[in-house]
Amino acid sequence: MAQTEEGAEAPRIIDADVHNAIGHKDHLLPFLPKAFHEQWLRGGPGYGGGYYGNNSVNRSDAVTDTGGAPGSDPLFLKKHHLDRYGIDYAVLTGSGILGISLNPDPDFGNAVASAYNDWLVETWLKASPQYKGSILVNHSDPPEAAKEIERMARHKDMVQVIMCSGSRQLFGQRVFHPIYEAAARHNLPVAIHPGTEGRGIAGPPTPSGHPTRYLEWHNILPTNYMAHVNSLVCEGVFEKFPEMVFVAIEGGLAWLPHLMWRMDKNYKGLRDTVPWLKKLPSEYIRKHIRLTTQPIEEPERKDHLNAIFDMIDADHMVMFSSDYPHWDFDNPQIALQQIRKPLRDRIFARNAMDLYGLHTRPQVGEGAVRA
Amino acid sequence: MAQTEEGAEAPRIIDADVHNAIGHKDHLLPFLPKAFHEQWLRGGPGYGGGYYGNNSVNRSDAVTDTGGAPGSDPLFLKKHHLDRYGIDYAVLTGSGILGISLNPDPDFGNAVASAYNDWLVETWLKASPQYKGSILVNHSDPPEAAKEIERMARHKDMVQVIMCSGSRQLFGQRVFHPIYEAAARHNLPVAIHPGTEGRGIAGPPTPSGHPTRYLEWHNILPTNYMAHVNSLVCEGVFEKFPEMVFVAIEGGLAWLPHLMWRMDKNYKGLRDTVPWLKKLPSEYIRKHIRLTTQPIEEPERKDHLNAIFDMIDADHMVMFSSDYPHWDFDNPQIALQQIRKPLRDRIFARNAMDLYGLHTRPQVGEGAVRA
Repeated sequence: MAQTEEGAEAPRIIDADVHNAIGHKDHLLPFLPKAFHEQWLRGGPGYGGGYYGNNSVNRSDAVTDTGGAPGSDPLFLKKHHLDRYGIDYAVLTGSGILGISLNPDPDFGNAVASAYNDWLVETWLKASPQYKGSILVNHSDPPEAAKEIERMARHKDMVQVIMCSGSRQLFGQRVFHPIYEAAARHNLPVAIHPGTEGRGIAGPPTPSGHPTRYLEWHNILPTNYMAHVNSLVCEGVFEKFPEMVFVAIEGGLAWLPHLMWRMDKNYKGLRDTVPWLKKLPSEYIRKHIRLTTQPIEEPERKDHLNAIFDMIDADHMVMFSSDYPHWDFDNPQIALQQIRKPLRDRIFARNAMDLYGLHTRPQVGEGAVRA
Repeated sequence: MAQTEEGAEAPRIIDADVHNAIGHKDHLLPFLPKAFHEQWLRGGPGYGGGYYGNNSVNRSDAVTDTGGAPGSDPLFLKKHHLDRYGIDYAVLTGSGILGISLNPDPDFGNAVASAYNDWLVETWLKASPQYKGSILVNHSDPPEAAKEIERMARHKDMVQVIMCSGSRQLFGQRVFHPIYEAAARHNLPVAIHPGTEGRGIAGPPTPSGHPTRYLEWHNILPTNYMAHVNSLVCEGVFEKFPEMVFVAIEGGLAWLPHLMWRMDKNYKGLRDTVPWLKKLPSEYIRKHIRLTTQPIEEPERKDHLNAIFDMIDADHMVMFSSDYPHWDFDNPQIALQQIRKPLRDRIFARNAMDLYGLHTRPQVGEGAVRA
């Protein structure tokens, strides 16, 4: 068993992407100003349709004991997922709510994000110390998003800021810097999560328009991550906010070597156009970007994935995630079994411990859900 | 020296991406209907501006002996590039003209594409047997593009169809199938070339809008290639046209392992939505996609690039290209030196020989430019 410096037991598994859901729309009403009740109830996040997946998004076995939506019950989720796999902490990332940034109405987006955050504290973070929260922000209104970070950062169980990766602008651009400034002030990582590409006020999911079907759309989601990481580095965000960490959740990771090499090569030829950069793009990426594993790429030859881990400094950049309760969930007893032990330990716990400040396991007794 | 089956000498280097330029706009007029002369002279391809690159696009040392534009003189190009590096054949890909597909007016696009093709035959293909042509098509009007392929395919020195990768739709979609049908009829590969992303009627260059500067835009160009390859496979283009080869020029190659793995993984879970596919996406990619090398990725550790070659079956998929006379030109005496001999030979000549039917070196005497 790993020990922390103080002798307390260190976490064995931290799951960096667990989707907690709002079971019924009504549940958000106590936290939402009355002016937005009808819009929420009749429109939901209301950022436009998405691709139709035959599988639906959720595992059918994750419906709760009382027939509730997958991910909607802290007690069931603990039993069905955390206890089953020996997961010490779950970083909660929301469900069907992140895309609120893509609603055309920023006031509605701000109100729903705030309501969600209050609901998250009351319903999940108070239920168990194993749950850690992500402060949802509406990235289409960055000054208000910054205020929301200020408001919520005092909750010690909020471990990062989260926003959807679908966007009408690239995240390095200066319009978003108030978000990073507020996050940096509170030493919080900023995370993005995919799945809203092409919705609402975001652009089409590719430079050449809309893919035809869910499969094709899902295959190509990481290209938006590449575009955001490229933008963050080239715009000098990591020079302006030198301690900032940006977490690319659920984007896989095998795309990163190519991006780093291409950026470094071009930087050598064109660096006079980005004089604010002080080092190679790949150096910023290694220091400031973190990736979560799911959906981990599965080459036929296991050594190919090990080669990718080697190329991207996985020892420091990669954190395990399951994506529970989504259909393409990675089971921690099966995923990543081929990698060598020290790297396994870093990916399954150490890198998330360091990033989120979770150096000891939840206290005995404290771990029980207050149902 | 490599020998072909017949005992004739095989090519040593084939350059799959050389940019021949129209030296002056006037040069196209003899081939262009009078109705479009003013539009061409005053608007050029006319598909909107692009990103400003400090370097300009061309090598300054490629200005011709008479002060002409880089790539505009067959005699100078032969001396400055082919003879200098022992290149047997250059596959010509045009310059500043491919984006004609992104002009809002399809009639103008069709007329300019036809004029360019006739000019290409007269000015370049008749000048030397070392030059091989690509039939330019206007992909925004596929039925007319198919007619243009029919018209030009009779020229034995036209070795492929080419179109810009900037597009308002993804290339797997059925609107483009007439182009592939015509190409397949004449056993011609279909090639795409980047650089028009975000121009004219194409969408923004990323799913989250426009990158800020040329460097950032250039870094991220391969994401459009990923989207097109994904689309071609998922839409079943390679089942419909079983002999078709699609050439992804100037997009690099290190992005392909990730795409293949992600597509294969998702296919296993979602294949009921694409019942026309008969095998794994990566199997279609290995058989039907070809990549050219420039701008080859340059990881610090040479073994990392070798690992990528291994992952993508470079023995059959990769062809050398220099991108002459562009600023980020790859010198064949420097690029790709670290790879093992049999693979080198395939990349520098054999794969292009097989694809383009260039199994013997240009005949002695015939190689001279008819100035």
